Amino acid sequence: MTESVLDYMTRLGKGARAASRVLARATTAQKNIALQAAAEALDKARDELLAANRLDLENGRANGLDEAMLDRLALSTKRVDEMIEGLRQVATLPDPIGAIRDMRFMPSGIQVGKMRVPLGVVGIIYESRPNVTIDAASLCLKSGNATILRGGSEAIHSNRAIAVCIQQGLATAGLPAACVQVVETTDRAAVGALITMPDYVDVIVPRGGKGLIERISRDARVPVIKHLDGICHVYIDQAADLDKAIRIADNAKTQRFAPCNTMETLLVHEGIAAQVLPPLAQIYREKGVELRGCARTCTLLGNAVLAASEEDWATEYNAPILSIRLVDSLDEAITHINRYGSQHTDAIVTENFTDARRFLTEVDSSSVMVNASTRFADGFEFGLGAEIGISTDKLHARGPVGLEGLTSEKYVVFGDGHVRT
Amino acid sequence: MTESVLDYMTRLGKGARAASRVLARATTAQKNIALQAAAEALDKARDELLAANRLDLENGRANGLDEAMLDRLALSTKRVDEMIEGLRQVATLPDPIGAIRDMRFMPSGIQVGKMRVPLGVVGIIYESRPNVTIDAASLCLKSGNATILRGGSEAIHSNRAIAVCIQQGLATAGLPAACVQVVETTDRAAVGALITMPDYVDVIVPRGGKGLIERISRDARVPVIKHLDGICHVYIDQAADLDKAIRIADNAKTQRFAPCNTMETLLVHEGIAAQVLPPLAQIYREKGVELRGCARTCTLLGNAVLAASEEDWATEYNAPILSIRLVDSLDEAITHINRYGSQHTDAIVTENFTDARRFLTEVDSSSVMVNASTRFADGFEFGLGAEIGISTDKLHARGPVGLEGLTSEKYVVFGDGHVRT
Repeated sequence: MTESVLDYMTRLGKGARAASRVLARATTAQKNIALQAAAEALDKARDELLAANRLDLENGRANGLDEAMLDRLALSTKRVDEMIEGLRQVATLPDPIGAIRDMRFMPSGIQVGKMRVPLGVVGIIYESRPNVTIDAASLCLKSGNATILRGGSEAIHSNRAIAVCIQQGLATAGLPAACVQVVETTDRAAVGALITMPDYVDVIVPRGGKGLIERISRDARVPVIKHLDGICHVYIDQAADLDKAIRIADNAKTQRFAPCNTMETLLVHEGIAAQVLPPLAQIYREKGVELRGCARTCTLLGNAVLAASEEDWATEYNAPILSIRLVDSLDEAITHINRYGSQHTDAIVTENFTDARRFLTEVDSSSVMVNASTRFADGFEFGLGAEIGISTDKLHARGPVGLEGLTSEKYVVFGDGHVRT
Repeated sequence: MTESVLDYMTRLGKGARAASRVLARATTAQKNIALQAAAEALDKARDELLAANRLDLENGRANGLDEAMLDRLALSTKRVDEMIEGLRQVATLPDPIGAIRDMRFMPSGIQVGKMRVPLGVVGIIYESRPNVTIDAASLCLKSGNATILRGGSEAIHSNRAIAVCIQQGLATAGLPAACVQVVETTDRAAVGALITMPDYVDVIVPRGGKGLIERISRDARVPVIKHLDGICHVYIDQAADLDKAIRIADNAKTQRFAPCNTMETLLVHEGIAAQVLPPLAQIYREKGVELRGCARTCTLLGNAVLAASEEDWATEYNAPILSIRLVDSLDEAITHINRYGSQHTDAIVTENFTDARRFLTEVDSSSVMVNASTRFADGFEFGLGAEIGISTDKLHARGPVGLEGLTSEKYVVFGDGHVRT
């Protein structure tokens, strides 16, 4: 193209800002029609989608993408089914926009409350998985936000084919095409432009590896909803039920190794360690999990465990490796988690009410759990319908981010000619 | 001091982080005792406070501070009374921390809800007014946040004297001294350090001139809750009640000229302009307000009004100057506000339900009002008890920021040994 990348991105930004004004006042019915029509369009365009995806996969192989990357990139009939189902589910979620709450009379006579509103324009930067295009577009659309989607260059043909279907949905509902825009250039400068246009973009949601997210957070001139590390803990309290403890510590580590909500460090009260650790070590051994323990864990488990280094406590393995530490008290467990954790998801296994209550209050993480596996930390499991990401930040949205995280609230004031004196 | 500014600020940061853990689990009673005891200490230390303040005023005069600055800096018996009353009012506000809402059962059997928690450590950077020291410290304390306060160097003696009283309050309640720390150095490098310590500071709230806030927003490596411009509008709809329109347009401009929520541009529907503008122009003339109008306003009001330039629509005067524009429709008014406004506070005067509803929905500002003066946009008037500032950002807190804006919510999950399948 003869247009510069900056000019191109500015054009997208201006279009998105204008579309966001229309979308902010779109009816719930309009938004749902767009989502349902996009689902139908996807269903009818299966051949085109798979053909576009094959092109991406061929290019990916030619460019030497590894198998894990190719797997994330690949669309199957099942994955297209899931995208269609995802659109329909978002259509059935309650519309958060326009809800007014807590209109209360003040001593002055004015009535004050809050109205939920869209953020405006959301920029999404992501890698490989084409289904993110649907997840992001559908959540943003339902929450009344215009979206600019910048997927990985390796998925460009798939993303373009998906975008065509979304455009059909928007057209059916009479909504502007610029409500959802896919960045058509694979030039990396497009990302740099997208994250530095505060006039046209209200928030950036990066999804991908830690390197990408750190780079974007550092360079962005607009707010970023982000997720960095997932160093999650399970703490088996002295008052834990043995059966629940084993079940949860097993599931939190072994159900899947790669996700961010998988346990990386197991903390065990020394008063229950001799009962709970040997059977757990047996399970981990059978499932091929390498154990790295503190000195006391090593003494207890012998050669079933390697010695953990200081670095282990601060490491997100995303792999079949688990660090284990014995603690003398709940206080020590909480201190460990607040020091080494990533404020993502941490669980206590206990039958003791007071210990549970203290853990919930004092562990400073986006999701805190009692007697449940850390693997539940997920927008779908939390009832959000879907998620655009998980935030490990404290401001705005914390934990799994669904429709509400893509909105804000403004104050609404009703008067009858009231003036301030 | 022999310690470098960076070392000093790091020490404050570490102390604040440790204190924030204690404060996060402090009881409501403890926090209220600290606030009440600080109020008593202030009451007993009136002589010391006024002496310290006299020193600041003398230095300020010697350093050539202007009268407005000296006025903001000065403590009077009345202002000390207000600080004491402010502390007592914050003590009476409900404690937001620990509130759990919406615990709902999910299909998996887990129960999921949200718990309100402190942000952690709040850094406040402000100028001259010593009362901000009390407002900020009390709101942060009540919301369970440790605070690092960096007031203007011109108020250093006053702020230190106030800090002594706050420390007495903390000690009475058995809370760590580092819950509230006043930066003791007037070295400007202290600000640079404070806004670039994400490990120790969770959010920065700058209060002061636009230059200060822009500089801090640009350089900060931690989130900033900020307020930039206050270009507020009143739109007099065709269906306005004349009496209410005149009362509100008068009050919004003339009750005080300097505040951020004062009206800067008056928009008037052309169908009502001939009725409402002449009497309003008369009022403004009597109150010494300079009028700058669009061409049609000039035609209507003659030599009572100067010609407005394009720049006027985008200017926050903070002065007895008002720009006036006639519009042909509600749409034109909304478009003008969304284009030239600062997303702060905008009001419509109308008796028409549909126009009011559209204005509330489509004007993208932190406070939107029907038949009330923009001057009401204020934490106290909105029932927040007090405010730490007004946010013109969309993420996290929008509009007047009170206790809730200094908190976040984390997910809470209850299970009974639940694992993910």
